[in-house]
Amino acid sequence: MYTLQEFKTVFDPILKEFLDKRINEFLRNTTDPFVRDFVLYSKTLSLAGGKRIRPYIAYIMYTASGGKNTEAALRLFVCFEIFHMFALMHDDVMDKQDKRHGIATVHAYVLERLKENDRTGDLENVAKAQGILAGSLFFSWAMELFLDDKEFPGKNLKIAHDYFYKMVDEVCLGQIFDIDTTSRKVTPEELVTQKTILKTSRYTFVRPAQIGAHLADPNNKLDDYLENLGTKLGIAFQLQDDLLDIIGDTKKLEKNILRDVADRQSTFFTNFVLHKGSKMQREKFLHYFGNELNSGEQEEVINIFTESGAIDAGKKLILQNLEEAKRLINMADLGNDYKKTCLDLIQIMQDRQN
Amino acid sequence: MYTLQEFKTVFDPILKEFLDKRINEFLRNTTDPFVRDFVLYSKTLSLAGGKRIRPYIAYIMYTASGGKNTEAALRLFVCFEIFHMFALMHDDVMDKQDKRHGIATVHAYVLERLKENDRTGDLENVAKAQGILAGSLFFSWAMELFLDDKEFPGKNLKIAHDYFYKMVDEVCLGQIFDIDTTSRKVTPEELVTQKTILKTSRYTFVRPAQIGAHLADPNNKLDDYLENLGTKLGIAFQLQDDLLDIIGDTKKLEKNILRDVADRQSTFFTNFVLHKGSKMQREKFLHYFGNELNSGEQEEVINIFTESGAIDAGKKLILQNLEEAKRLINMADLGNDYKKTCLDLIQIMQDRQN
Repeated sequence: MYTLQEFKTVFDPILKEFLDKRINEFLRNTTDPFVRDFVLYSKTLSLAGGKRIRPYIAYIMYTASGGKNTEAALRLFVCFEIFHMFALMHDDVMDKQDKRHGIATVHAYVLERLKENDRTGDLENVAKAQGILAGSLFFSWAMELFLDDKEFPGKNLKIAHDYFYKMVDEVCLGQIFDIDTTSRKVTPEELVTQKTILKTSRYTFVRPAQIGAHLADPNNKLDDYLENLGTKLGIAFQLQDDLLDIIGDTKKLEKNILRDVADRQSTFFTNFVLHKGSKMQREKFLHYFGNELNSGEQEEVINIFTESGAIDAGKKLILQNLEEAKRLINMADLGNDYKKTCLDLIQIMQDRQN
Repeated sequence: MYTLQEFKTVFDPILKEFLDKRINEFLRNTTDPFVRDFVLYSKTLSLAGGKRIRPYIAYIMYTASGGKNTEAALRLFVCFEIFHMFALMHDDVMDKQDKRHGIATVHAYVLERLKENDRTGDLENVAKAQGILAGSLFFSWAMELFLDDKEFPGKNLKIAHDYFYKMVDEVCLGQIFDIDTTSRKVTPEELVTQKTILKTSRYTFVRPAQIGAHLADPNNKLDDYLENLGTKLGIAFQLQDDLLDIIGDTKKLEKNILRDVADRQSTFFTNFVLHKGSKMQREKFLHYFGNELNSGEQEEVINIFTESGAIDAGKKLILQNLEEAKRLINMADLGNDYKKTCLDLIQIMQDRQN
């Protein structure tokens, strides 16, 4: 089995080929240079970065479950990346993010072009709308991709379809919770957990794994195992993400830190301070929550995270979940290649800096 | 064949049944009262109004092409309404519309609830994000609906799928043009025509008709005929819509007039004034273009539309397109029931007040 790094070098040309073909097909309907330019930019952005973790998870389980038609499977798993780009484009509008993979997000790119072209009216709103529309196109293409595959038996595809649509429900509900919590004065811990399970565990691990497994073998009995393993991996992955937003290196991250604080995001860490911090820590934190911070304020907020014990508790939880995941991987009746590949992936997750 | 009015009474219970089932399935994943409430509201809004013209067009062509499994066809044509609700929810956020079918749009409803619940942060942004997310769920459900039908032969469904995804491309591109033109100082006439063909002709007439026809008979040779007829009907329908935005009755419309002027929308009428009006009419019009108007200003803008000749030219074009459509309907080799039903529909289009 490929390592994650090898996988990206094999997968990215397949992703690019799909995007080239599908975007050209779309653009046949227009010669307008402005529209063509920003739709093509959405391809540039898709290929500018990303770890390809979702198609990789699907690939691991497809292979571990005995799937042999890897080439066709990878073409199908492009749907995960196209869907992910849809989710990112919409999230970036909702979260008002200007940068992604170190370059402009689609709506930020459109805004620049509108200004250059001396356009008039509510340009911010126009740019956001175009970001939403580009995202919706990707959503449609992801689902279309799943439809048209003659390489796999109907039964296998049917289960894969069903899980894909379950995943869409889950990630949308997770994002609804995510947005909702930004407007809550205090978020119950349970809601943060639910959000993580839906938006990260199910979306990034459980459903891609189940889809890969069922595409290879529709009679596999791995669903509960993958739910269990994927939930732990998802929690660890999300905690790591939230931790990097506090103590990460902005250069390696290719984005600013403390975005969650600025955006009033409820994470394990913000919730830890608000539920378990001292009165003074809570009050100080609330003063900064929802605001863009200068470097002195950033330092102060990082201190609150550290001194309240949030950072240590988070790190401990990451380790716990990864240890539990390792145990599940080692116990599985799935061959040494599977085990080695998964354990390598966990190491990458543990070491990641962005 | 049913008239449009009869169709709505038959179709709406099927639409409601689908929404009840699918939204319940979605809501199984959450007990959160706030989230449940606004997702259920998206159903209320879907059933509060709408003419069901797209499933009706598909139904007419399904029946005219010899389709006999009407019950299953109508269950499938629910996809057009669910997709339409997605488009409306997203459009309403983009166009900042607070009302739809005489009640609050989803994002406006969410904003009210957030305020009632004493939430904090950027509530407008939170509400818009939830409107986008509710819309995306509907988009996913529309495509899922199309996937899972065992009542029709694979060949018929395959063509129907392909046309559905073409339609999604077309309506997204049409909406991209639509948004784009709101930021242009002057919009070329050709772009307004392209927008109308994509957003109205293809979306409301051509593709639903082709899908209905191919679902009944995958070997039918009606594509060019339906393209031709649907283009004319679409142009007439859009012009009528734009005309009602100027001279319609706000009570019957259940919305304010001159929204296109306030939103800087390029329509046949706004473009007529800007390209063919006198210098004084153009300058006066540009002064109001993009602004909310009081009733005195509204009267003045309506006068500009009338005196520039835009209203008369638009009315003439509506009649021309409808006459041409009638000719195509009468010429078709499709049975008297088809002809009578289509001619009745044209009469309804001509008489419509909202």
